[in-house]
Amino acid sequence: MHKTQDPHFAERVRASFARQPAMTLIGASMPVIEPGYTEIHLPHKPEITQQHGYIHGGVVGMIADSAAGYAASTLTGHETSVLTVEYKLNLLAPAEGQLLIAEGSVVRYGRTLIVTRAEVFAVKHGRKMLCALMQQTIIAVHGKQEQPAKP
Amino acid sequence: MHKTQDPHFAERVRASFARQPAMTLIGASMPVIEPGYTEIHLPHKPEITQQHGYIHGGVVGMIADSAAGYAASTLTGHETSVLTVEYKLNLLAPAEGQLLIAEGSVVRYGRTLIVTRAEVFAVKHGRKMLCALMQQTIIAVHGKQEQPAKP
Amino acid sequence: MHKTQDPHFAERVRASFARQPAMTLIGASMPVIEPGYTEIHLPHKPEITQQHGYIHGGVVGMIADSAAGYAASTLTGHETSVLTVEYKLNLLAPAEGQLLIAEGSVVRYGRTLIVTRAEVFAVKHGRKMLCALMQQTIIAVHGKQEQPAKP
Amino acid sequence: MHKTQDPHFAERVRASFARQPAMTLIGASMPVIEPGYTEIHLPHKPEITQQHGYIHGGVVGMIADSAAGYAASTLTGHETSVLTVEYKLNLLAPAEGQLLIAEGSVVRYGRTLIVTRAEVFAVKHGRKMLCALMQQTIIAVHGKQEQPAKP
Repeated sequence: MHKTQDPHFAERVRASFARQPAMTLIGASMPVIEPGYTEIHLPHKPEITQQHGYIHGGVVGMIADSAAGYAASTLTGHETSVLTVEYKLNLLAPAEGQLLIAEGSVVRYGRTLIVTRAEVFAVKHGRKMLCALMQQTIIAVHGKQEQPAKP
Repeated sequence: MHKTQDPHFAERVRASFARQPAMTLIGASMPVIEPGYTEIHLPHKPEITQQHGYIHGGVVGMIADSAAGYAASTLTGHETSVLTVEYKLNLLAPAEGQLLIAEGSVVRYGRTLIVTRAEVFAVKHGRKMLCALMQQTIIAVHGKQEQPAKP
Repeated sequence: MHKTQDPHFAERVRASFARQPAMTLIGASMPVIEPGYTEIHLPHKPEITQQHGYIHGGVVGMIADSAAGYAASTLTGHETSVLTVEYKLNLLAPAEGQLLIAEGSVVRYGRTLIVTRAEVFAVKHGRKMLCALMQQTIIAVHGKQEQPAKP
Repeated sequence: MHKTQDPHFAERVRASFARQPAMTLIGASMPVIEPGYTEIHLPHKPEITQQHGYIHGGVVGMIADSAAGYAASTLTGHETSVLTVEYKLNLLAPAEGQLLIAEGSVVRYGRTLIVTRAEVFAVKHGRKMLCALMQQTIIAVHGKQEQPAKP
C-alpha cells in the first residue's frame, strides 16, 4: 500500500525503538515493521497492571501511541524524525489476557503531518479482542535525524 | 468548588492509587487529593525515558489519564468505581526536566458521565512549563465498589 | 455484521433525520441506512462554503457526527434515543468537489456506550477522496423514545 | 496575554469571517476579536435545530471550531493562513436557550502548530451554561495569504 522513502526503514525503526528505555521497562517488543505499519507486543506481567489486575489503561495508551508513531516513521526519509502532536484513545474493554498487540497504521501520509490509527487487541486464551482504538496526528521534522543517545 | 459525596474520598483514592503496580513501576506518587482535583508527581529517571532522554510521551499520557480519572473519583460515592471511556491528549513540548506534575480536574460532573481535563507540567530548574493538555470522558459505574486485590 | 434490535430501524432513523431542520438547511440527505451503518450525502452549494469556496470544515463535522450517531441508532431498540458524548475529527484534505459522502459505522456496540467512526469523502469529477476521519462516543438513553416535534 | 504579529489582525479576521457563507447561513456573528481570543455568537432559530428543538450539535461544533481557529489566526502574520488539523469536542448539555456563545482561545502558540480550545455556552433566560468543550490543533501555513473570493 504505502511506499517508503528509506530502504532501511526497518533497521532504523528497530534501532529507535531499542533506544526507548520506557519500552524496555514495560516489556514491550516490536516484532513487525512494514511500510506504514508496525506491531508492538506486550506480555502481561503484574508490574504493569492497575488495581484490578488488568494491564493499565495508560500502558495501553503508551503502546498504541508508539505503534502508530513508528508506523509513520516507516514512511519518512532517514533524516526525518517524527513527533506525536496528539492522539485520541477510546478504551473499549479491559486489557485482560496474556498478551496485548498494538497495531499501528498510517491513514494519510503528508509531508508535514501524518494521520495514523492504532487498534489494541487483548489476547486471552488464544482469542483476540479489540480493547482500544486510537486516532493520532504525527508531525514530521525534516533534517532532524534521530540521534543515538550519548554514551 | 466541587462537592464530594464521600467524606472519606481522599483515603479511598489514595488506597486505590496504591493498588496500581503500574504507577509504582514508573515511580509516580499522588501527593494532592482534593474534591474534583488530584496531582500526580513523577520524578525523572532514565527507565521512563524515550530515545532523546525526555520522559516518554506515553508515560506523560499515563499520568494525565490517571490524575484526571482520580479527580472524577473524588466526587463519586464510595460504592462507585470510575473507568476511562476515552481521552485526547496534545503533547505541547518535550517532557524535559527533573519532575512532571499532572494536574487533573473535573470540568463537568454527571451521574453517568464525568468530563475532566489534565494539564501536565515539566519542572526544569524550578520553572514549570506546560507540556501536555488532555480532555477526557469518564464513566461512573455505580454499585461496583473497587475491590482490594486478592492475596 | 451488526444485529439490530428493531426491525423498523430504517424507518425510525429516516424519520428522525427528517425532523432535523439543520440537515435540511445544509441540503443533506441520508440515502443509505443499514444495521450499524449510514451514509449522509451533501451536494456542494455556495451557501455552505468557507472563504476558499470549499465546503466548510464545520459542515464536514456536522455530517460526520450525524452519520456516525445514526449508525449507532440503527442498532438500538425503538424506545432508545442516542446522544453524542464526544467526537474527534481530523480534517485530511479540503472538502473540494461536487458531493460529500459521510460514511458512519459502529465500531463497538455496548448497552450504554457505543463507539463509532466516520469517514468523509469528497467526490470530485467522479473520484472519491478521503477528506475527514472521525472517532466518536455515543450514549444510549433507554426508555427515552425520540418524540416527534410538537405542532 | 498573547502578542500578535499583525497590528491589523482584527480587520483581517473580521474580513475572513465575512467571506464564509456557511457562517452567514447559520446566522453566526463574531462580535469579539482580541489577540488570541474570539467569540462567535449564534442566536437560536428553528432552521439550525435538531429533532428536539435545540441547536444541532453539529452547529455547536461549527462555531467552536471557527472561534478557536480564528483565535489562532489573530496571532499570526497577515501573510499566514490557518487550517484546522483536528479537534475533539465534548457535548456536555443540550444547546438550549436563546443564544450560543463560542469562546475560542489559544493555549499554545507555535510557529507551525497552534493548540487552541473553545468553550460553548448556551444563554437561557440570561443564564450562561457551559454546553460544549473543545480542544483543537491548528496548522499555520506561511506565505499563503488568504485570498478574497473572486468575483
